[in-house]
Amino acid sequence: MAPPTEMRFSGWGVEADAGELSDSVIAWLEGRFAAKLAQPVAPPRAAEVRLGKSQSSKRILGELAARVGATNVRTDHYARLTHCAGKGYPDLLAMRSGRKLAAPDAVVYPGDAADVRAVLKTCSKQGIAVVPFGGGTSVVGGVTPLRGEFDSVIALDLSRMRQLISLDAKSRIGCFAAGLRGPELEHLLRARGYTLGHFPQSFEYSTVGGWVATRSAGQASSGYGRIDEKLLGARLVAPAGDLKLAARPASAAGPDLRALVAGSEGALGVITEASLEISPAPEVTRYEALMTPSFSAASEALRTLEQEGHTADVARASDETETEMGLAFAGIEGTRGKLLEGYLRGRGAGSGALVILGWEGASGTIDARRRAALRILKQEGAVGLGAGAGRAWAKRRFSTPYLRDHLLERSVMVETLETSTTWSNLMQLYRGVGDALTAHAPIVGCHISHLYDSGASLYFTFIAQQDRGNPLGQWQAAKDEACDAIVAHGGTITHHHAIGIDHRRYLKAEDGTAGVSALRAVKKSLDPRGLMNPGKLL
Amino acid sequence: MAPPTEMRFSGWGVEADAGELSDSVIAWLEGRFAAKLAQPVAPPRAAEVRLGKSQSSKRILGELAARVGATNVRTDHYARLTHCAGKGYPDLLAMRSGRKLAAPDAVVYPGDAADVRAVLKTCSKQGIAVVPFGGGTSVVGGVTPLRGEFDSVIALDLSRMRQLISLDAKSRIGCFAAGLRGPELEHLLRARGYTLGHFPQSFEYSTVGGWVATRSAGQASSGYGRIDEKLLGARLVAPAGDLKLAARPASAAGPDLRALVAGSEGALGVITEASLEISPAPEVTRYEALMTPSFSAASEALRTLEQEGHTADVARASDETETEMGLAFAGIEGTRGKLLEGYLRGRGAGSGALVILGWEGASGTIDARRRAALRILKQEGAVGLGAGAGRAWAKRRFSTPYLRDHLLERSVMVETLETSTTWSNLMQLYRGVGDALTAHAPIVGCHISHLYDSGASLYFTFIAQQDRGNPLGQWQAAKDEACDAIVAHGGTITHHHAIGIDHRRYLKAEDGTAGVSALRAVKKSLDPRGLMNPGKLL
Repeated sequence: MAPPTEMRFSGWGVEADAGELSDSVIAWLEGRFAAKLAQPVAPPRAAEVRLGKSQSSKRILGELAARVGATNVRTDHYARLTHCAGKGYPDLLAMRSGRKLAAPDAVVYPGDAADVRAVLKTCSKQGIAVVPFGGGTSVVGGVTPLRGEFDSVIALDLSRMRQLISLDAKSRIGCFAAGLRGPELEHLLRARGYTLGHFPQSFEYSTVGGWVATRSAGQASSGYGRIDEKLLGARLVAPAGDLKLAARPASAAGPDLRALVAGSEGALGVITEASLEISPAPEVTRYEALMTPSFSAASEALRTLEQEGHTADVARASDETETEMGLAFAGIEGTRGKLLEGYLRGRGAGSGALVILGWEGASGTIDARRRAALRILKQEGAVGLGAGAGRAWAKRRFSTPYLRDHLLERSVMVETLETSTTWSNLMQLYRGVGDALTAHAPIVGCHISHLYDSGASLYFTFIAQQDRGNPLGQWQAAKDEACDAIVAHGGTITHHHAIGIDHRRYLKAEDGTAGVSALRAVKKSLDPRGLMNPGKLL
Repeated sequence: MAPPTEMRFSGWGVEADAGELSDSVIAWLEGRFAAKLAQPVAPPRAAEVRLGKSQSSKRILGELAARVGATNVRTDHYARLTHCAGKGYPDLLAMRSGRKLAAPDAVVYPGDAADVRAVLKTCSKQGIAVVPFGGGTSVVGGVTPLRGEFDSVIALDLSRMRQLISLDAKSRIGCFAAGLRGPELEHLLRARGYTLGHFPQSFEYSTVGGWVATRSAGQASSGYGRIDEKLLGARLVAPAGDLKLAARPASAAGPDLRALVAGSEGALGVITEASLEISPAPEVTRYEALMTPSFSAASEALRTLEQEGHTADVARASDETETEMGLAFAGIEGTRGKLLEGYLRGRGAGSGALVILGWEGASGTIDARRRAALRILKQEGAVGLGAGAGRAWAKRRFSTPYLRDHLLERSVMVETLETSTTWSNLMQLYRGVGDALTAHAPIVGCHISHLYDSGASLYFTFIAQQDRGNPLGQWQAAKDEACDAIVAHGGTITHHHAIGIDHRRYLKAEDGTAGVSALRAVKKSLDPRGLMNPGKLL
């Protein structure tokens, strides 16, 4: 099996997909900043980034190579460089900082669960920290190669483990090796008539193991469910032994241990396989856009949609700022004119909130679902913008991370954070976090992207001219204040980005002292020496 | 608030609801046994049951009374008697055995979470085991007053804690005190236009706290969801501190600790409140019965129903034996003639498998759902028996436990056990467990009662003439062999009855060594001295 395409170390994805920063984005930002953007500064080349020296001894490397094969233990500059960070804003800053970066002493590529077990045994014996590495797309520091109390750290890259292990069509269960990425997994399933229906923005590069480890949610999770809801069974290889949970529809045999695997963030062990609920591949996929009078009207409409059982598979609503930003940025795909035309027709010169709905399923069922949903939206004053605008959103969906890279080259900070809360608290949380961010960034947009009967997620994007003297400090100040506001207003510290390093100090607000202690006890039980992803989660 | 009605110590529910054993049941059993039933032996009166002497010291009782009030610390015979067992078959045998029974040394009735905290503090200091007691309906030994390594044990009866703490209608979340029983909870919700939709067979006596502690599923859980799926937030008061989880729709903040509260079985702490997803009270509730050619045809029909999104809120299918038993027993409500007539019309003299469907919801939505479901069932050869037969089932639903008591008086053993597995494994598990039980009981029936996309539950009832010389040994042999068969055929050891004492030795088959160790670590963290419900779950 050919190895999967590696992402650029200095930004998202691959060069060929990156595109260019459009004039419309530049013009809109310069208008908002009332200033010209800085001239582009290209990221460094790989050879220019300095890494700390590898601490691995020949003897230990030999022991690992004896197990997984010599070619699957790498200590070369490029392997270490591409495993020394995730894709958060601080990661991108680090790559451009000129500082000597901490990197894993080696990158080890196990071929199966037995390999993982053997590597953990060696690392346990030798006192080496292990950072499980799936797609490397964490935006919260989840794959940063921290050593904890150890002298050495390896990245355990699961990209060789990419099998569809089994498919139980009758029970609609797929068992997947942890290193499978989104497109490859969907390709395997679609060939058999199925889909996982899991499409996070990182879809093209993130993996099954990463999704489960971070309790990922995808764009269609309102329809297909979050990854933790789809998790029926799993294997987590831990230093103390395997936690093997057979795929079962439901049980009352004490606490559900699947919930310890989901969200384990590499800190309890290595997820090597996951059994997930799959669905028939949709006959039809239809996206559409509507304009509503306001974000609060859109929110009410989506709440009614969800609670009355008419949820779209994809259901999103942007606030007024994000809507304006979306209209300005849509120029990238050339559909700006169409969007804007519909927008102006619907609202005159006023503001509005864009709603995206996506429908997936059997061709016969979608019409009735759509009709019920559109009736509700129209009661809240929504005006349809048509399927073209919806498709434009869907097309742009996986390319937005590239925009952040382009803007970073022009000294613009773009960062996102997300939370969820109950419907009754949603607008209060929205305003609280928005106020906190407005002190740090002139542009703060937000959208609802995941619906539940009891509440919804909020996803914030904030954009500011970079403080070139102290870009990390600038980011940290905004992030801290936003996180404090999330906690103060009763939101969860993360709806789908996970804890990693960045949210660690908020875990106690979420789980309480007793809860964090219980999790520490679980970690101690599964990972007595504390090898696994030190400094993350707990 | 008036205290709730206490169940009879020697059997299910209250005398007034018990009814009588009908001639049709007697005749059918005598036919199957080819023997007359034994003459009735009434259970002992309360005063006749001997209990071990209370070990509580005056000083400790005084300390507890100082906190919760003197009237809320009881050591009288009746209080101790009604808290010395649940409602499993071994519990009923014990009451009739003439043996001196182990009973809690005192029964303590806390008024709120602060009371619970204070009681745990005293018990921790003094070394007293604590058995949380909700409705006392456990059928797996969950409330048996084991002392573990301690000299003394109390039952902590939560029946004073019966408030609807809050209702967030916009977010569809109710927060309930743990001691609320089913009917009282539904009464509070229906008055406000809502329902929890949770109706286990124990509904009339079991409590919110008990449902969460045992990961309960109710008759309508195919529609409304299991209690663990409805659990949005909770408070668990543990000796080491409170685990307080705010009600949230979803989060990715590490492992979901709600999954440690659900299924905790009193062994980690005392659940004092739970925030649960609620639903609008249904405008219409409609039950109906159908006869299908065979259990496997019925199973296939229910699988299609579920996987194509046309699930009824209540969806059950009895195998041929249970169908025959149901038809014979339905005579109790006088609907036997009607059922039988339809049955014979549909199938001639052959056998069949009864399907019950229940629909709840807005009046406008049920017709379309029914049509889609009936189309699928008819493709599998189902014949409608009408709404009368469905209503007869629903009416009988909560009275079946009384039948077991009546039969026990006639020296007939009636016991049930349940499991779940994937659709692809369902019939294999069905046959495996059936074969194991057939060696111990001439009558073994089974039904599917909970549907999931990936599989379903199986609920077995087995009936035999009691071995009067060794009734407990007879039960244990059947139970052991059935449980071994469940594990051997890949089922979960319990779908909704929980672990308690009876399933403890199978937990390792479910969770593995690493999983059980992790749970022990959680217990050690929350309950360092091991006070909480010793000998249960872990």
